[in-house]
Order: sequence, then C-alpha cells, then structure tokens
Amino acid sequence: MYDELFKKIKEKAKFVDEKLLSLIPEKEPKILYEAARHYPLAGGKRVRPFVVLTATEAVGGEWEKAIYPAVAIELIHNYSLVHDDIMDMDETRRGRPTVHKVWGINMAILAGDLLFSKAFEAISRAEIPPEKKARVLETVVKASNELCEGQAMDLEFEKRDTVTIEEYMRMISGKTGALFDASAKVGGIVGTDNEEYINALSTWGRNVGIAFQIWDDVLDLIADEEKLGKPVGSDIRKGKKTLIVAHFFENADEKDKQKFLKVFGKYAGDVKGEGIIEEDIKAEVMEAIDLLKKYGSIDYAANIAREMVKKANEALKVLPESEARKDLELLARFIVEREY
Amino acid sequence: MYDELFKKIKEKAKFVDEKLLSLIPEKEPKILYEAARHYPLAGGKRVRPFVVLTATEAVGGEWEKAIYPAVAIELIHNYSLVHDDIMDMDETRRGRPTVHKVWGINMAILAGDLLFSKAFEAISRAEIPPEKKARVLETVVKASNELCEGQAMDLEFEKRDTVTIEEYMRMISGKTGALFDASAKVGGIVGTDNEEYINALSTWGRNVGIAFQIWDDVLDLIADEEKLGKPVGSDIRKGKKTLIVAHFFENADEKDKQKFLKVFGKYAGDVKGEGIIEEDIKAEVMEAIDLLKKYGSIDYAANIAREMVKKANEALKVLPESEARKDLELLARFIVEREY
Repeated sequence: MYDELFKKIKEKAKFVDEKLLSLIPEKEPKILYEAARHYPLAGGKRVRPFVVLTATEAVGGEWEKAIYPAVAIELIHNYSLVHDDIMDMDETRRGRPTVHKVWGINMAILAGDLLFSKAFEAISRAEIPPEKKARVLETVVKASNELCEGQAMDLEFEKRDTVTIEEYMRMISGKTGALFDASAKVGGIVGTDNEEYINALSTWGRNVGIAFQIWDDVLDLIADEEKLGKPVGSDIRKGKKTLIVAHFFENADEKDKQKFLKVFGKYAGDVKGEGIIEEDIKAEVMEAIDLLKKYGSIDYAANIAREMVKKANEALKVLPESEARKDLELLARFIVEREY
Repeated sequence: MYDELFKKIKEKAKFVDEKLLSLIPEKEPKILYEAARHYPLAGGKRVRPFVVLTATEAVGGEWEKAIYPAVAIELIHNYSLVHDDIMDMDETRRGRPTVHKVWGINMAILAGDLLFSKAFEAISRAEIPPEKKARVLETVVKASNELCEGQAMDLEFEKRDTVTIEEYMRMISGKTGALFDASAKVGGIVGTDNEEYINALSTWGRNVGIAFQIWDDVLDLIADEEKLGKPVGSDIRKGKKTLIVAHFFENADEKDKQKFLKVFGKYAGDVKGEGIIEEDIKAEVMEAIDLLKKYGSIDYAANIAREMVKKANEALKVLPESEARKDLELLARFIVEREY
C-alpha cells in the first residue's frame, strides 16, 4: 500500500539531493564543507522536501519550482540535527558518528551554522517571483525561530522530573510541528495564491509533524526491537519527556510516580552504575512501561497522534482532489501506522 | 574631528536598537531570549548598521528604509560573536561574561542560532520592494557563508605554528571583510539601482573591514595598555595568527623564528606554567614584539591597513559628493588612526 508512495519519495529525493549537494560542494575550507555534508550524505528520506514538492502539486503548481524551497527546508532540518546532537551529546545518527564526534564541537557548531546559512541561500536561488520568495523567506524564518524555541524548552525539560501535557505540546509544536507546517505551507505558497489552500496545508503540516514525533515516542515503547534498531524503552532510560510521560504524571498516583522516577532517566548513555547488568535494566524498564500502560498513557498518546492525522487530512479536504493530495493523505496515515 | 561622526553613529544606533530589540523581546522561553539579548544589550557601537544606513544616504536613498537590513547585519554580527566566543573559549566580552559562561554552551549555541534566524526575520520585515528584498537576502547570505568559511580557516590556523600572508588575507576577508562589504552593499541596494554605486560601496566595505581587523591587531602590539584595556601583546600570548605574524614568518631567519615560537601562544588563557610570574611573561612578550619590529612586520601591517582605507575611499569617489559619503570616508580614516 505504501510502496508506491515510497517510490515517489525516492524519485523526488533525487532532484532535491542534486541541488542540495550543489549548495554544499566539496570545496575549501575542506574540513568545514566535509562536516556540513556529513548528514546530508548519510541519507535521510527527504520526507520534508517531499511534502514541499507534493504540496505545490496539490494546489496545482509545478513542483520543479519548489525544489530550492524544499532544499531550504531540508537544510534547516539538517542544521538543527547537527546542533541538537551536540546539545544532546548523541554519538551516532543514521548509523554513523555524529558531526561533533568526528570533527569536534567547534567544527560542528560551524558546520551547523553553514547549513543554516545555506538554507537561506537556497531560498535566494529559488526561481519564483520575488513576492513569493519574500513569503517563503517569512515562512521559513518563522519555523526556524520556533525550532529554537522548541529546542530551548526541551533543554529546560531535562532539568525537571516531568512536564505537563500542555507544556509538552507547546514544545513539540515548535520542535517538530513548525518545520512540517512550513514545508507544506511553502509548497502551497510556491504553487498558488489561494490563501485557503495555503492555510489548509499549514494546518495539515503542523498536525502531521506533531503526530510524527508522538508516534515515534510511542514506537519506542511498543515496537519490535529488531525493527526499531534500539532497545525498547530507550527514552525511559534517557529520561526523555514525551507526551506519554506527561500523561502519566498528570494521572498516576503518588506511589506509582515515585516508582517510575526510580527508573526514569537513570540509564542515560552508558551510565549503568556499579555492578548493574543489562538484564536487570531491561526488567526495570519493562516495569516502568507497565506503569505507563496501567494509566493508559501509551494508548492516550497513540490516539492523540491518530486524531491529529485525521484532523490534518480533514483540513486538506478544501483542496481539489488529486493524486498529490492523496499522497499527502497517505503519508500522514503512514506516519501513525508505521511500526519502525 | 571625529566627535561629530561619533554623535551621528550614536543617533542612528537608537533607531537600530529599537527595532533590534523588538525582534528579540523578553518572551518565552525566557532563558533563550535572555541569552540572545545578552550581547545586543551590552552595547557595541553599531558601526555596521551605521555603514548600512549611511551607504543608503550616500546613494541618495532614505536611510529609514534601511533600518531593518541594518538590524539584520547587526544580528549576524552578534550571532557570530556568540558562537565564536564558544569556539575560542573566551570568558568575557565588552566587560561582561560571555553567553556560554552565563548560560552554558548548549544555550549559547541556541541563542546564537536564534540571533541568526532573527537576522533573516529582520530582512523579511524590511519595507522595501520584494526585488530589493531578494537582493538584500542574497547579499547577506553570501556574507554569512563567508563568515563561516573565514572562521573555519581561523580554527584551522590554531593548529599550526604560522600562516602565510596570502592565507591570512583570505581568512580575514571572510571573517571581517565580508560583513562590512555586505553592510555597505546592502545600504546601496536599498538606496539605489545604480550598479556602479553598489559595487563601489561593496569594495569600500571589504577593504575597510579588513583594515579594521588588521589595525586591531597592530594596536594589540603598539597601543597604550590603559587605552587598550588589556595587556600589550595579548595576541602573542594567545598565539593569534595575524598579518603581522604572517609577515614575520615570511621574512625572519630561522633563528629568530625559533626564538619567537618560544613565546608565541605559550600563555593562552591563564596558563602561565609553574612558577612563572607575570613580570617575566611581559618581558618575554616584549622581546617577541622586538623581533616583529626587527623585520618591520608591525609597520608592514599598519601600512597595508592604511593603504586599504585609501583604496576604499578611492572607490567611493564614483558616488556623488555628500555629507554621507564624507562620513563613510571619515569612518574609514578613523579605523586606521584610532589608538584603541
């Protein structure tokens, strides 16, 4: 069912990658451009660029016109990955060492900065009327502001035991919702002047983006370890504040909260403590997951994600029916049906 | 002679600051915006914004139209200060602790990112025709790419004993020349469609920016300690690769090079080594400065700076005579006559 969709994503990715890599070629200073190329070359599905291009089609525009704006969005995404990985002290991404692990923190900061700058160069290169270019710029800027705000909230969350559902939703709206929103909206701006269409795409993107992250966090707790490629409950080990955890803390009784906190965030990175073995950690994490289940927190989050996708696709109904619209709807559904 | 100029810079700075701070207000997430406001609130002369606004006037435009582009340039400057301070592990700037010293490295990365993002929001807000906006964007993007490239070269220089004059000039052209270039050019773009004027301003800015940095490095070696506010030769202690040092290494004999290298970069930060006292370091640094003088390296750099300013003001002669043009010329002269 999704195979056809994946094929389309891959095909469009080729056009995106060509322009993306032309913006960050192998040039001097070599080390800077190598570091900047590290993530873009490591793959990534180019989902956001696909959203941009397909949104343009869905409003009756030519997707080729939206390639540079799509590249801009992907560059913003990649810059934020580079900087976020420094902040989170992550050591691997897409199966490869993170930028700061290979080139050090200084060069990673700089490589992220360059990717950020190149995102705006991509906008600058777009072959669209200057009025549309200004609007694309405005939209991307708004998203990149929100990205910073969401990440700042997330950093602040780390210092706390938990967060409320409302706080979580605000954070994730910035950190993940904003760029999906901008992706769909920018695609709309390139393809049409119909404000109703553009707004619908924006709403679609915001909801899909948030649902995407929530579903990711659900999968961390319920997915098959083989498919996921990481231990079940790795977010619990790290103490990651998810919608699931927020729901639990708003609903659990004091005793269960305390029980949960004994495991939550206690096994970040490779810190296992003296004499504690992997099997014991696994058992503890499973007990924590059972606590989340007891209060229906995982189901709660999964349902929210599904509802947001429904709402997203509902919003899209103002657009004329088309293959492109169907692809966006399908992509949204995939996001809350995938098992990895 | 310069008092009148300084008064003008201060007056224009008021208009710039108003819009600058409206872009980074006190809002949530509080910590992020506080960190982002730290340098902009710490003062700074707003020389680059003054160049933007005065360049607009010098080509017959209304400087008010260029306020947001001027704010964009200042935000780029401030973002780069925040990130550079992390990379250089600097602990103070403008007499206050650096952003990462107060809020930690993670929040400093993020605050820099936000300032960067806000620079493009400033462009987005500019009340100029969309064609001009696109051109301002293109110009600022080019400068911010060059900024990254220059900083990457500078980081790479740290690992070496020395650099050639040619390498130094390439680095500083990116790190300091590019943003001054963009400042003058952007001002021109806002104020006119005359390409000859715009190019002249660009040339002026590039040369003035480079001269500014070279003169700074000269002052570090010859200025009055009281006026400078830091010990003479602090760049020698840190091992900073300047044009002066590059000239020395291209001209000194092997013995003198080795002598110089015994002091150069040996007293970075507070690392003084066991039992070494400040008086001894001072004496060593003075000997190193004498070596630079022996080969005329300080004079060489000072003359290059002066010649660049001459070349800059020469380029400006294609513009019609005006008070604004005179102010730019005066600013350029000040840059290589100042004693602090």
